[in-house]
Amino acid sequence: MSSTFGTIFRVSTFGESHCKGVGAVIDGCPPRLELSEDDIQKQLDRRRPGQSRLATDRKEEDTVSILSGVEHGKTLGTPIALFVPNRDMRPSDYKAMTPVPRPSHADYTYEQKYGIRASSGGGRSSARETIGRVAGGAIAEKYLALSFHLEIVAWVDTVGDITSPEQDHLSLSRDAVDRNQVRCPDPATAEKMAQAILNCKEEGDSVGGIVACVCRGVPPGLGEPVFEKMEAKLAQAMLSIPATKGFEIGSGFAGTRMRGSQHNDPFIMKGDRLGTQTNFSGGVQGGITNGEPILFRVAFKPVATIGKPQETTDFQGNPVTLEAKGRHDPCVLPRAVPIVESMAALVLADMALRQASRQ
Amino acid sequence: MSSTFGTIFRVSTFGESHCKGVGAVIDGCPPRLELSEDDIQKQLDRRRPGQSRLATDRKEEDTVSILSGVEHGKTLGTPIALFVPNRDMRPSDYKAMTPVPRPSHADYTYEQKYGIRASSGGGRSSARETIGRVAGGAIAEKYLALSFHLEIVAWVDTVGDITSPEQDHLSLSRDAVDRNQVRCPDPATAEKMAQAILNCKEEGDSVGGIVACVCRGVPPGLGEPVFEKMEAKLAQAMLSIPATKGFEIGSGFAGTRMRGSQHNDPFIMKGDRLGTQTNFSGGVQGGITNGEPILFRVAFKPVATIGKPQETTDFQGNPVTLEAKGRHDPCVLPRAVPIVESMAALVLADMALRQASRQ
Amino acid sequence: MSSTFGTIFRVSTFGESHCKGVGAVIDGCPPRLELSEDDIQKQLDRRRPGQSRLATDRKEEDTVSILSGVEHGKTLGTPIALFVPNRDMRPSDYKAMTPVPRPSHADYTYEQKYGIRASSGGGRSSARETIGRVAGGAIAEKYLALSFHLEIVAWVDTVGDITSPEQDHLSLSRDAVDRNQVRCPDPATAEKMAQAILNCKEEGDSVGGIVACVCRGVPPGLGEPVFEKMEAKLAQAMLSIPATKGFEIGSGFAGTRMRGSQHNDPFIMKGDRLGTQTNFSGGVQGGITNGEPILFRVAFKPVATIGKPQETTDFQGNPVTLEAKGRHDPCVLPRAVPIVESMAALVLADMALRQASRQ
Amino acid sequence: MSSTFGTIFRVSTFGESHCKGVGAVIDGCPPRLELSEDDIQKQLDRRRPGQSRLATDRKEEDTVSILSGVEHGKTLGTPIALFVPNRDMRPSDYKAMTPVPRPSHADYTYEQKYGIRASSGGGRSSARETIGRVAGGAIAEKYLALSFHLEIVAWVDTVGDITSPEQDHLSLSRDAVDRNQVRCPDPATAEKMAQAILNCKEEGDSVGGIVACVCRGVPPGLGEPVFEKMEAKLAQAMLSIPATKGFEIGSGFAGTRMRGSQHNDPFIMKGDRLGTQTNFSGGVQGGITNGEPILFRVAFKPVATIGKPQETTDFQGNPVTLEAKGRHDPCVLPRAVPIVESMAALVLADMALRQASRQ
Repeated sequence: MSSTFGTIFRVSTFGESHCKGVGAVIDGCPPRLELSEDDIQKQLDRRRPGQSRLATDRKEEDTVSILSGVEHGKTLGTPIALFVPNRDMRPSDYKAMTPVPRPSHADYTYEQKYGIRASSGGGRSSARETIGRVAGGAIAEKYLALSFHLEIVAWVDTVGDITSPEQDHLSLSRDAVDRNQVRCPDPATAEKMAQAILNCKEEGDSVGGIVACVCRGVPPGLGEPVFEKMEAKLAQAMLSIPATKGFEIGSGFAGTRMRGSQHNDPFIMKGDRLGTQTNFSGGVQGGITNGEPILFRVAFKPVATIGKPQETTDFQGNPVTLEAKGRHDPCVLPRAVPIVESMAALVLADMALRQASRQ
Repeated sequence: MSSTFGTIFRVSTFGESHCKGVGAVIDGCPPRLELSEDDIQKQLDRRRPGQSRLATDRKEEDTVSILSGVEHGKTLGTPIALFVPNRDMRPSDYKAMTPVPRPSHADYTYEQKYGIRASSGGGRSSARETIGRVAGGAIAEKYLALSFHLEIVAWVDTVGDITSPEQDHLSLSRDAVDRNQVRCPDPATAEKMAQAILNCKEEGDSVGGIVACVCRGVPPGLGEPVFEKMEAKLAQAMLSIPATKGFEIGSGFAGTRMRGSQHNDPFIMKGDRLGTQTNFSGGVQGGITNGEPILFRVAFKPVATIGKPQETTDFQGNPVTLEAKGRHDPCVLPRAVPIVESMAALVLADMALRQASRQ
Repeated sequence: MSSTFGTIFRVSTFGESHCKGVGAVIDGCPPRLELSEDDIQKQLDRRRPGQSRLATDRKEEDTVSILSGVEHGKTLGTPIALFVPNRDMRPSDYKAMTPVPRPSHADYTYEQKYGIRASSGGGRSSARETIGRVAGGAIAEKYLALSFHLEIVAWVDTVGDITSPEQDHLSLSRDAVDRNQVRCPDPATAEKMAQAILNCKEEGDSVGGIVACVCRGVPPGLGEPVFEKMEAKLAQAMLSIPATKGFEIGSGFAGTRMRGSQHNDPFIMKGDRLGTQTNFSGGVQGGITNGEPILFRVAFKPVATIGKPQETTDFQGNPVTLEAKGRHDPCVLPRAVPIVESMAALVLADMALRQASRQ
Repeated sequence: MSSTFGTIFRVSTFGESHCKGVGAVIDGCPPRLELSEDDIQKQLDRRRPGQSRLATDRKEEDTVSILSGVEHGKTLGTPIALFVPNRDMRPSDYKAMTPVPRPSHADYTYEQKYGIRASSGGGRSSARETIGRVAGGAIAEKYLALSFHLEIVAWVDTVGDITSPEQDHLSLSRDAVDRNQVRCPDPATAEKMAQAILNCKEEGDSVGGIVACVCRGVPPGLGEPVFEKMEAKLAQAMLSIPATKGFEIGSGFAGTRMRGSQHNDPFIMKGDRLGTQTNFSGGVQGGITNGEPILFRVAFKPVATIGKPQETTDFQGNPVTLEAKGRHDPCVLPRAVPIVESMAALVLADMALRQASRQ
């Protein structure tokens, strides 16, 4: 059970859906950083269910408390414990599911791994676990913004087969992303996506999609060669988010169809620093950032919990028709946006602090 | 510089292209395992350059020595140090490149990170670093084969825009993969791929592609929830291989266009165990293996070193036309096959040993 | 700031004296273990200040809540978060100390390290931090008791120059230790120690001493050779407790005056297992347990906070006479007993789980 | 099997007595550091057996090769692999011991842990393993000397019951220590110690003692609070050295008999920095260095291998008289001096680099 991430800037999350609450401990955050609960609450609110009719009706306030590590609005350099109590639990909704492992959920695998399961079924694979990540990520973001003016902006790039037009990575802002409930910065596409999601909801079905992300202002030299290359840690971070199935950086899978002569990013002067003319590398070369924006995309499968009846078996292998009654998102993409940003922030903050020891 | 991978089964690699040699130390390998240099040499030979006219002409024997940790053909449970001397170095070929950072190579980023570079340019981002991984992976594979009859088979799925037809994941063998130099198990596709690679070579250009991989016989229950989910560690492992740009598991990016009702894998009995009818999950649910084959794909960009002249700049930003003279692969895909297998083995062996502590 | 301990069984503590509370997250605890708040509260109560007139008058209930990781009285295998709110804080007592670094306290070094300090002065070096360790240790003890009938008993061996007679390591129980407030199992010695502590208290001074500990029922084979030998991890664990200055195992410092021919522990049969006739090794050979009881001792300095006036300087180096007014223990030894036991339990549980992966 | 030490500056050692050789991989060494094999060889030569008639007659050249990570006399920031081949092995001397676990050796415990043993018996508990530590420590020392003018000097403080007079910690040099074969800086005491060791050798017996160590020029602020306090990591480092039984810092065990009013170190100005009048703390308060010299002592038991016959049992418990014939040190203290220094250097270098990330 590895619930800790990072080498210097480390976050450890805890909590299931139906215990007293969820939270995180952040160890290794630099001292003397201005930090308040508001800094964290902002991203938690973007992750929270019940923000729009597109998401689950499960309403939770998700109000964070800082339990330690901060005094008079400043970090002490000691572990920052964060806690968000669970409120609206309704465990009865889930009860019917107990003897039947939900298809493509973690019920069966948790049972195999631990020989015991939380009453919520998938235990720590619950979306609620991500609260701790977002809380920790908000602190990482604060550090990155204050130290490097580093900006991280994620958005919904595709929902099902609806794809957003190319964005201007250099100017895209969170405000632009949040202008609609889908978190796709192109209004016309967002409208189509919203409709597709609502259709899914009505049909008791779910739909997947892709979240894209840009990190701007990343200093060159971040990333630990060999096994902890920047892209390797980003890939781990993203594939650790529930419901993800893929990760690509820069040219990604499409780049496999290019020739080297097209794909190579030639150097040019950009002001007083060396930059690259194109950015098929996605801001990373040999596992180390080159100062260009980091660009990556994350694939989310359609969520496993659907309203439609499913033909499956119980734990003993007896055929069963499963009908879920819990409240669930037909599409997690809009709420995944701050989670993707948070995981990117956790990777970058750790890498920045690791590089600091070389200077 | 993080050159260590794994929590219990740990591999640490060392070495650049132009020092005395490269190698690895494997700590945490179970004791009493039968192991000889032959077990390791076999996979090293598959990774070795100079196997065919498709790859670089750089010839290296890459003969491995076990320096410690094995006596009378059995592991002692102590660190196993492996060493492969560098032989055919020709540093002069690289000299011309020194004042100019090669586009999409790690010359510039290593300089930014360390303020110093190995004479080979990209330092540890060299393909030669992967020798240590393959050596360590061969030991991990031996452990997995003896303990679980676990089999890992990777193959070249695409080269540029040439795609292999769907393979039978349950029966595909390494022998079938190795039947041709491209390591694509479909002979007709392999022929086309070989031709495409040779065309590239003639033009002084390079081409990318996708390596696919199946892991069969994986016991259910492997993978550490939250940050070290099976897919997260596989993603890190694969994106740590030089020249990779993407990773997907199971349905991957294509799965984002499916509905939940199609994508969910219903349970059925398979002999005396519960299995799934489909395998869009790719053998992993909630970060934990479910006993079905693990299926994943890795995107490799076209290699950065090409013969064609490139318009770029030197380190000071002065325009330069760069013409490489070193010997390089027009396509790394065939040689990447054993590297992908080795990294998968390292992840699985570590996860198996971590799970063992729960039983 | 490294607040995490352990490789598989991992405890992360958080909290200062004057924030909302202190606690711990235990990751890697085996699933299906019976666990309730009572199991933890018992040891916390032994650590709690205000138990007797020998200790500080600061009264705290130190009531623990399990926030996650346990359902229906059983561990889930997921992170167990524990929280103990701070109640009786009286920050005003400490205020006078702010501009003056207290001698032999952590005020000065925290300032040097972080450039900021908690209002309590020594930040995480506070005795209150140890609540998280004791809470985590109680869970580790439960696991060790259920799996191996392993018993850990610590006691106060010396206070100042008053030394307890040799104890029978094979039979000594916690009940015998707790029979008096000093936690020295020899009643006559305990009486002398109590008097010495009270004398110190009256004089506004403090006194040090030695805690001894025996671990019985330790299976052979625990301990990770080289850098994580059993004695090395025990030494780290003990020297991480506030106010400790030394650690010795088995014959310890006295053993340096023996000859090898006296010191070697010859093998003999003990029932159906091989044991040793003497135990100068203290249960560990080559860093690995041999099945004999582990015996070690920990030196505690006289606590730094005293009532007597002290001639020192402020942070700027100006001479100052410092008179402390806070409530403090004249002798931490009795309360250190459960802390020593807890740290030993954390080391042993982690080592047992690490060894499990070899079997 | 944990053969890796450190978080940023990490050393991994490998090798047994009777394999091809021993060595280490140092990962995380800062780039651009001047480093040659001579820097390392110097300390290896001080550790080497066969330096004097006081030590074992086993002669080994212990010549180190740098395999990677250094080019043109400078570190690249990449892993530095070091190798020392085994030469003078004479495995036949050890053969007689095979069916009998040597008392107070690691033969029995390795068998219990791994179910297999190296032909040398105690496997990685061999003194030869420390070559890798000394090699790694020499690099750490170079970094510390260049960055902070930090000096580490260890010496033999006691042999059996012969104790050296108090040394001047501020001026003691390695040259002074090396002036005699015992490595005790007081010539008269050294003479007595040498005689005691020779007497032991003649009798086929062994003798223990204490190595003391001072680290000067340590910047304030080093050490990671809670579980990785400076004294905690030093204690782990020292107790990981073969044959050690105890560690104390500053006042140590003797300090337990002092009053707080005597033991507290009042602050005074020392030039332009705050220092302490006394140094009972041993340079560390609350786990963090305060700029005063770090002072600690390490207890070494009399080595287990002796020439005298010993009454013990074989692995089956049958009574056996054991007579060792191998060549062994009657006293490891003189050769332990560079090992203690090396382990201290490894701790300090790692702590310095960890603190660097806060600045």
